[in-house]
Amino acid sequence: MSARTGLQLRSTVKPDGELEITLIDHTFPEPGPDEVLVRVDATPINPSDLGLLFGPADLATLKVGGPAGRPVVTARIPERAMPALAARVGRRMPVGNEGAGVVVAAGASPAAQALQGRLVAMIGGAMYAQYRVVKAADVLPLPAGATAADGASCFVNPLTSLGFVETMRRDGHAALVHTAAASNLGQMLNRICLKDGIGLVNVVRKPEQAALLRAQGAAHVVDSSAPGFMADLTDAIAATGATLGFDATGGGRLGGQLLTAMEAALTRGAKEYSRYGSDTHKQVYLYGTLDTGPTEFVRNFGFAWGMGGWLLFPFLNQAGPEVAARLRRRVADELTTTFASHYSNEVSLAGALTAEAITAYYRRATGEKFLIVPSREG
Amino acid sequence: MSARTGLQLRSTVKPDGELEITLIDHTFPEPGPDEVLVRVDATPINPSDLGLLFGPADLATLKVGGPAGRPVVTARIPERAMPALAARVGRRMPVGNEGAGVVVAAGASPAAQALQGRLVAMIGGAMYAQYRVVKAADVLPLPAGATAADGASCFVNPLTSLGFVETMRRDGHAALVHTAAASNLGQMLNRICLKDGIGLVNVVRKPEQAALLRAQGAAHVVDSSAPGFMADLTDAIAATGATLGFDATGGGRLGGQLLTAMEAALTRGAKEYSRYGSDTHKQVYLYGTLDTGPTEFVRNFGFAWGMGGWLLFPFLNQAGPEVAARLRRRVADELTTTFASHYSNEVSLAGALTAEAITAYYRRATGEKFLIVPSREG
Repeated sequence: MSARTGLQLRSTVKPDGELEITLIDHTFPEPGPDEVLVRVDATPINPSDLGLLFGPADLATLKVGGPAGRPVVTARIPERAMPALAARVGRRMPVGNEGAGVVVAAGASPAAQALQGRLVAMIGGAMYAQYRVVKAADVLPLPAGATAADGASCFVNPLTSLGFVETMRRDGHAALVHTAAASNLGQMLNRICLKDGIGLVNVVRKPEQAALLRAQGAAHVVDSSAPGFMADLTDAIAATGATLGFDATGGGRLGGQLLTAMEAALTRGAKEYSRYGSDTHKQVYLYGTLDTGPTEFVRNFGFAWGMGGWLLFPFLNQAGPEVAARLRRRVADELTTTFASHYSNEVSLAGALTAEAITAYYRRATGEKFLIVPSREG
Repeated sequence: MSARTGLQLRSTVKPDGELEITLIDHTFPEPGPDEVLVRVDATPINPSDLGLLFGPADLATLKVGGPAGRPVVTARIPERAMPALAARVGRRMPVGNEGAGVVVAAGASPAAQALQGRLVAMIGGAMYAQYRVVKAADVLPLPAGATAADGASCFVNPLTSLGFVETMRRDGHAALVHTAAASNLGQMLNRICLKDGIGLVNVVRKPEQAALLRAQGAAHVVDSSAPGFMADLTDAIAATGATLGFDATGGGRLGGQLLTAMEAALTRGAKEYSRYGSDTHKQVYLYGTLDTGPTEFVRNFGFAWGMGGWLLFPFLNQAGPEVAARLRRRVADELTTTFASHYSNEVSLAGALTAEAITAYYRRATGEKFLIVPSREG
């Protein structure tokens, strides 16, 4: 057994404000006793990868050069965004949250040896590469019959959507609202809620997204582009009793609108006037940044409200190892049903760095999801 | 013992959008066995009273009529604000959160009888009146030597400022930031923090407010009107380690700026780049609405953050009766020192309803605080 060499994607912010993405030849070390070396066969481009990949670069300045198979992508970062990036300037950051592949070398420990030749899923960054060394204890062996594509996205979206439901139960809410609900994650959450009998209000931005979710059995779908949006949203929230929302957009007014509609649903037909609003706590978590602009809301929802950030890893840490293990077991059990992901495009590492591909996945359109197959040539 | 008649202030929203404030002759019932009848001798006009008193009325349309001693105040409520007021339309709401006075009649129970003739403080609404019937268990007998003016404000501001410190300890924060810090409440919080050795960053809007707080021993005072505000705020937060803020303004950008400065203080000199920001939780509570406009923030503080409403009574309910009793004891013990309030004007009930008085207390200027003395004529 010896070290292997293979391609690895790196994203660098230079001191002069240029972002550069390249594929380097990386030497992957031999796995330690408790580690395995995995040949990455499939790794998705999730919205959560784009932040590290492109940072706050202005994609209008995108340039793709370099020789065939070794693209060099550059773009300018606005000067005002540089201070927040100080700690990554000059560092060639590997990218890629999760992936799946075959264990091609294993350390001496029994746990590592037992994985030899197995197809496994992994999380932890640096997956946009041909190989990845990872702790044996951290991989999820995939069930028989599953493909690398089946397992490539089995952490971020599955655990995030299950995490929403766990958060709902932990904080004593009865139902929930989700925005950008037609996303891969949103469709997954809809399947979980249908299966578990949980009230879910799906908020989408287009009629065709509403149709997509209804075709998948969603009971409550509200289109934010429709003229009666706030009334529809309030009705759906009243019907489900939702007092918790997860908002993928982050910027703009949508998060606050969820709180406004929750309050309107709670105080509907109230007999007593309360100048402080309903005393039922209403909570919205901003877990994404599809809209990078400022967040704005009108405080017409009393004082019993909260807004905050939500992130998968802090949630899992707070929930503890038993909950995390239970959620992972469920993902493995329902990998090709509840937690199935769908990809519109499969590309090589170099293929993920063409101007056409970047433009396509950067717009995060519904149904447009890229899978990188690092073993693919060119 | 028989029922007594006296003046009581009422605020009414009429179906046509007119707000009307009047003084009515109210018959106060005999106290029940566990109750006492208190002659209200002093009751403050707190910012938290203005919402019920004027609602969202447009004070540019203010008119004061009625005979001498019985003013009738009217103002228009913008049509868009009416739906949220549905539950109070047509109701003549009594006003006034807290007050102090002498027990002039007591129910048969020993607890009530023991209060006969005592000077007590009370909370619970309807204090803008010449009398108030209240449960014996709910009053706070004032220490010997205290006046009604000393005790009039001994719930809202004292318990709110103590509640901030309790919330800080409960949620594991080490220090706190307070905005509108030159207010009566802010000065009280400063005295508590100085006495208890707690790091406090006082945010004010004017140089003279900064000078006022510094003269009272405040170590960290930051002026939001100064050009170096964000840098000064970050320095003060770094010096204290504050990760919790209480914002009285509510609208605008100040709440978000506190989170931004906390994150900047936490990540100062960070060696590792984290695209998700610091993992230390940063929290800002909006407890007031000095700025009734929308709340806006730029999410440049990672994902470990929260914003939410904070209100005294839900806090006391959550904290439980033992904590509430401990806080009330401290208020009684330090009534004329830590928890002293200062009034710029003393007025009768009718005097609180002149155009001049309303204009003065409605602008909530530092140092301008009104005390109503209901026994005063005219």
